[in-house]
Amino acid sequence: MTHLAKQALRAQRIETASWAYGNSGTRFKVFPQEGVPRDPYEKIADAATVHRFTGVAPTVALHIPWDRVADYAKLSDAAAELGIALGTINTNVFQDNDYKLGSVTNPDPAIRRKAIGHLLECVDILDQTGSRDLKLWFSDGTNYPGQDDVRVRQDRLAQALRETYDRLGAHQRMLLEYKLFEPAFYMTDVPDWGTAYLHCARLGDRAQVVIDTGHHAPGTNIEFIVAVLLQAGKLGGFDFNSRFYADDDLMVGAADPFQLFRIMHEIVLADALNANAGIAFMLDQCHNIEPKIPAVIRSVMNVQEATAKALLVDQPALRAAQDSGDVLEANAVLMDAFHTDVRPMLRELREDMGLDPDPMAAYRRSGYFEKVRAERADGQAAGWGA
Amino acid sequence: MTHLAKQALRAQRIETASWAYGNSGTRFKVFPQEGVPRDPYEKIADAATVHRFTGVAPTVALHIPWDRVADYAKLSDAAAELGIALGTINTNVFQDNDYKLGSVTNPDPAIRRKAIGHLLECVDILDQTGSRDLKLWFSDGTNYPGQDDVRVRQDRLAQALRETYDRLGAHQRMLLEYKLFEPAFYMTDVPDWGTAYLHCARLGDRAQVVIDTGHHAPGTNIEFIVAVLLQAGKLGGFDFNSRFYADDDLMVGAADPFQLFRIMHEIVLADALNANAGIAFMLDQCHNIEPKIPAVIRSVMNVQEATAKALLVDQPALRAAQDSGDVLEANAVLMDAFHTDVRPMLRELREDMGLDPDPMAAYRRSGYFEKVRAERADGQAAGWGA
Amino acid sequence: MTHLAKQALRAQRIETASWAYGNSGTRFKVFPQEGVPRDPYEKIADAATVHRFTGVAPTVALHIPWDRVADYAKLSDAAAELGIALGTINTNVFQDNDYKLGSVTNPDPAIRRKAIGHLLECVDILDQTGSRDLKLWFSDGTNYPGQDDVRVRQDRLAQALRETYDRLGAHQRMLLEYKLFEPAFYMTDVPDWGTAYLHCARLGDRAQVVIDTGHHAPGTNIEFIVAVLLQAGKLGGFDFNSRFYADDDLMVGAADPFQLFRIMHEIVLADALNANAGIAFMLDQCHNIEPKIPAVIRSVMNVQEATAKALLVDQPALRAAQDSGDVLEANAVLMDAFHTDVRPMLRELREDMGLDPDPMAAYRRSGYFEKVRAERADGQAAGWGA
Amino acid sequence: MTHLAKQALRAQRIETASWAYGNSGTRFKVFPQEGVPRDPYEKIADAATVHRFTGVAPTVALHIPWDRVADYAKLSDAAAELGIALGTINTNVFQDNDYKLGSVTNPDPAIRRKAIGHLLECVDILDQTGSRDLKLWFSDGTNYPGQDDVRVRQDRLAQALRETYDRLGAHQRMLLEYKLFEPAFYMTDVPDWGTAYLHCARLGDRAQVVIDTGHHAPGTNIEFIVAVLLQAGKLGGFDFNSRFYADDDLMVGAADPFQLFRIMHEIVLADALNANAGIAFMLDQCHNIEPKIPAVIRSVMNVQEATAKALLVDQPALRAAQDSGDVLEANAVLMDAFHTDVRPMLRELREDMGLDPDPMAAYRRSGYFEKVRAERADGQAAGWGA
Repeated sequence: MTHLAKQALRAQRIETASWAYGNSGTRFKVFPQEGVPRDPYEKIADAATVHRFTGVAPTVALHIPWDRVADYAKLSDAAAELGIALGTINTNVFQDNDYKLGSVTNPDPAIRRKAIGHLLECVDILDQTGSRDLKLWFSDGTNYPGQDDVRVRQDRLAQALRETYDRLGAHQRMLLEYKLFEPAFYMTDVPDWGTAYLHCARLGDRAQVVIDTGHHAPGTNIEFIVAVLLQAGKLGGFDFNSRFYADDDLMVGAADPFQLFRIMHEIVLADALNANAGIAFMLDQCHNIEPKIPAVIRSVMNVQEATAKALLVDQPALRAAQDSGDVLEANAVLMDAFHTDVRPMLRELREDMGLDPDPMAAYRRSGYFEKVRAERADGQAAGWGA
Repeated sequence: MTHLAKQALRAQRIETASWAYGNSGTRFKVFPQEGVPRDPYEKIADAATVHRFTGVAPTVALHIPWDRVADYAKLSDAAAELGIALGTINTNVFQDNDYKLGSVTNPDPAIRRKAIGHLLECVDILDQTGSRDLKLWFSDGTNYPGQDDVRVRQDRLAQALRETYDRLGAHQRMLLEYKLFEPAFYMTDVPDWGTAYLHCARLGDRAQVVIDTGHHAPGTNIEFIVAVLLQAGKLGGFDFNSRFYADDDLMVGAADPFQLFRIMHEIVLADALNANAGIAFMLDQCHNIEPKIPAVIRSVMNVQEATAKALLVDQPALRAAQDSGDVLEANAVLMDAFHTDVRPMLRELREDMGLDPDPMAAYRRSGYFEKVRAERADGQAAGWGA
Repeated sequence: MTHLAKQALRAQRIETASWAYGNSGTRFKVFPQEGVPRDPYEKIADAATVHRFTGVAPTVALHIPWDRVADYAKLSDAAAELGIALGTINTNVFQDNDYKLGSVTNPDPAIRRKAIGHLLECVDILDQTGSRDLKLWFSDGTNYPGQDDVRVRQDRLAQALRETYDRLGAHQRMLLEYKLFEPAFYMTDVPDWGTAYLHCARLGDRAQVVIDTGHHAPGTNIEFIVAVLLQAGKLGGFDFNSRFYADDDLMVGAADPFQLFRIMHEIVLADALNANAGIAFMLDQCHNIEPKIPAVIRSVMNVQEATAKALLVDQPALRAAQDSGDVLEANAVLMDAFHTDVRPMLRELREDMGLDPDPMAAYRRSGYFEKVRAERADGQAAGWGA
Repeated sequence: MTHLAKQALRAQRIETASWAYGNSGTRFKVFPQEGVPRDPYEKIADAATVHRFTGVAPTVALHIPWDRVADYAKLSDAAAELGIALGTINTNVFQDNDYKLGSVTNPDPAIRRKAIGHLLECVDILDQTGSRDLKLWFSDGTNYPGQDDVRVRQDRLAQALRETYDRLGAHQRMLLEYKLFEPAFYMTDVPDWGTAYLHCARLGDRAQVVIDTGHHAPGTNIEFIVAVLLQAGKLGGFDFNSRFYADDDLMVGAADPFQLFRIMHEIVLADALNANAGIAFMLDQCHNIEPKIPAVIRSVMNVQEATAKALLVDQPALRAAQDSGDVLEANAVLMDAFHTDVRPMLRELREDMGLDPDPMAAYRRSGYFEKVRAERADGQAAGWGA
């Protein structure tokens, strides 16, 4: 591994999600776990723990209203004391009873107004936390053909996005996420990157598309979307997770490590790994049956490993093989990097950074879990609803 | 429409599901509705209402423990008083905290024992309700490669099924349902009809496969499975619903009415519509955003319409075209039936049966909803958890 | 059916494809048929026959080089004599040995130049035939990860499109088609509507997106794309066909008639059926095992039936139900139109137009097939390669 | 790597396919390559070349009639001289004009008889070549709903299989392959493992299922099928290849190396790698754009690498983690093996076997390609049709 690759890995930043530390589940059941945080402060403590052992997860995304607090400056200070910072603010316009038929695209103008109000409130929170990015995911859509009008809903969406965009400060961004389906089961208002791009292109430079790696139709080539959005200057970031079927929200890299590598390869090729490129690398996962903090640590490591492999690709050799039309050689150059075991190098890197080379083992030895299990035994564990 | 077709439609029996009358939702949100039943008795009242207006839904399936009562004879009597009967007993081994890693396939033998205990309890309930069918759906599976051993779990499953099967009375049946994924996101222990068939074939004649129309991989030809299971004598019944993406649980016929017609065509072709064939035609749906009773009425009507069209297929003409290799003509014979508007005939049939020709309008006029909305305003509405 | 609806149906124009009259097949086998045309003139005769019996298929699309002739004016005259006109010109840059690794995106600049040359030649042909639309489908892509660079290929594509676009006359258009996969099996250079839109938006008003109904990932909501492209002013037309799995190229409406209806519903809703809207309604199908002319007649009728149903939708009632959030009623309004048997009305319409009410029967009685079978017994039947 | 693992890898046997050395393509185009064999003898020479450099590909599968020769003993001797043997005999009942509507399931009894005749002829060839396995893949199916009767076709299929099975010698086997779709586009007569199993179970012990890794619906968990068929004693072998979309027939391991590893893990877990288990590990691929011999060498190496990783799984640790319900640890044990770079060990193994450690480089240096390119410059290159 070259010095430059090591530098890149050392500078890599992966944002974890506050909600990944809380309980989650499927529509069939949420299986509660021990030691789960009960409020935003405890979620931040967990996120800081992940950073303490990995060294590359210095920010944590918030979800409003799940992480609503009276004083965001205080929350921010608490994070800083633990060595991390507050990151992306995620809006939530899908859990109020009013949103049964949609939020910003609801047929009822009063409900649309309420939803936009929430989006604007979240920009206020951005101002308070100093976060750069407002992330928007809309569950809006319809379950039955005819239920509502596609184009009318697109217009409503455009208006809500415009009002929110115009409220952003000069250094703030709007990240628009798309998703094929769920919870809407016939038509989703922002189902694909094309729709997200269309809206962001109209809004302006600070509106960008977020790719959630679990939000595509079967067979979709995600790294192609990465490359095309990078080229169009419209890739704002990732919500990393992995899937075998639908939006399974498994640990990133767990279902298809080769796909994750191909995605990171497009990032490295476009020199979009460094902070200046403005790509937010975020985790958005559900640890339904596995313990949460170790699952997040493992996920951070999976992204690191995929990145390390992508950094190992011999780009001049790759380009030479591509330009000469040598299909097998070009593929072999890529696979050579993928097949390399980068774990020894990453262990070395961690030691250079003053970390334990094995973050999982170090976390287990730390006693953190035993501590929080005891401390958090009483009270209401945080989940998607709180 | 021939006299025979009318007779078949008059004799048709569609079972509704108690849980379809309660609140349901996605992992993101359950949107509560007004007038939702608060206990099994009220669910039965709703089911009876559907039967009152459709005339072809004389039984209601129960789900244990959601519909657990102290005295099933009393529940049965209550149903009888309302003109319906209790139907299939559905087991539930997916909502206890113990089942996080599986029920009958759990690595822990004590949990497996507990799960089998539930299955056996449900056979006891069959004895009490006089129901014929025990329906088994297992959410069991794994989320991550390596999490557990496929073959070991198959063995555990086989043992649980055997013990339960052996407990069945001579006139009782075990219906085994399969599902590709959800809530398990890497491997499901009974993911496809092949696995369900394999187990049922080993168990004996009274073990049969249930096809849930929403439980397949994209592109699966469901009517093929219907035909093959019919031919093998192993089709026990259907859980009807529809889907555009995953297991969306929309109203049957809402997403692809032509597919529903093709399924019913295979049923009619094999003369499996009549009660002697022993196929249970059940609804298993989630009415997350639409009012529940009208949605069930609409669903029953959708099955009727698909059946009526299937009964209209000119079978001799179809066979003649097939045998002569006339692709377009054979397809045209089938499509001719599908394109026919059978609603006038079904209205006529309902009038013959002493029903209102328009069940939806009749229900709306009946004041039932206004009545239960008032009656059920207080208390805890039933949902998947209760 | 209202007078306006009848007028719309009478004015409807569906373009058939010259190659649909020739032999086609899968990679496994092309099964030759009798009476297949041997040259573009005979293909035009078949297309004219379809128009003679349907009355709504007055143009035929050409495919270059399959339909290359020395004198396009003469070909155009021959069409005119038979009562039809030449329509869209389809380019073909996928069958020359040089195009193994791509045409306009090939790593070799000489091959890219050759491919662009073909595109420009096709604009020349547009000038000669008086056709409005140049349709571009690129099979370009890669089979293996690493084989070539996504962004570099996008640049090459953009250059080829620009050069071709700039060559268009003021009344000519470029229609860009997208396709998820096949023949490229890892990455296709224009895989989805987003990519096609991106290029068309950059090029200008006369670059528009074509939706081939068989070119999407499983689960894609095609009518959503129709609506969004209509709203963006970028829907240029359709390549109609149907599919159960991949790009099966079956007769339109054969696999999912409800989907075709939903697509036509979006067209009717946006008032995009009339000629002024500039949407080209084309068939692009493969009749591998069914006789070709009757299959095209059936396909034209399927589009007519879906259109008729879409015209029957009670739009004010639909809008009222949508605006009041009545999910079931809105869906019912749509389904009411779909369930209506429009075939009697279409028979009536045909009689009004001086046609036989049953085009299939009239074609069969006409003796056309027997005539061409005899005439075309010798020589080389046309296929995808000629 | 333990001694046992090395022994297993040394004993591994991968069968290559004669047709992979000939030209292949998509329905759009077959791009011819240089140096392609012109007859079965030259295909065998190419297969022997692959074995010469890999050491683990000592047999080559034949495809009849593509590889029909007058004297199979002579062909067998030619193979033996080159250090390999003839392997599985593949039947072909999909390329005769008669098979447009099916072979053994065709509505026409005369065509069914002809197809069965071919199957029996192939058993004769088995007798002559001394091969153990007859592999059956049927393209039979229908393109349109209604085209033919599912159950009638299943009966025809069962009769053909029975007659063929009864003709087998005591040491011969029938391997039945399934495929979801293509070339049939509505219904395939053997679309899934369940159907193949059903037929094989009825036939007897020497009828076994073959898994082609490219023949499944999106989302299918193939390793689950491997495990279940192993447990049922019905897994006969694999047709290895890989895919992103449909039956892409790319090099095995190219699209999802982790999936290939998981498949081999199930094989190793069940101790089914050794020859006594009777699993045939075959390649069935199309090298449409990449040079064929190196592509086959790469594919053999990919299977070896996946196998080596599977052999590295710490099975006791895996079982312990599974039994204790430690989801993350069980997954980690599996991933640990997958992430290991096994290429150094395989190079070592090859040196132990007297081979060049780098088969690709050795092949390139050998001059074989230059030799056959010159020798085979004239004449008709072999393809799927010859």
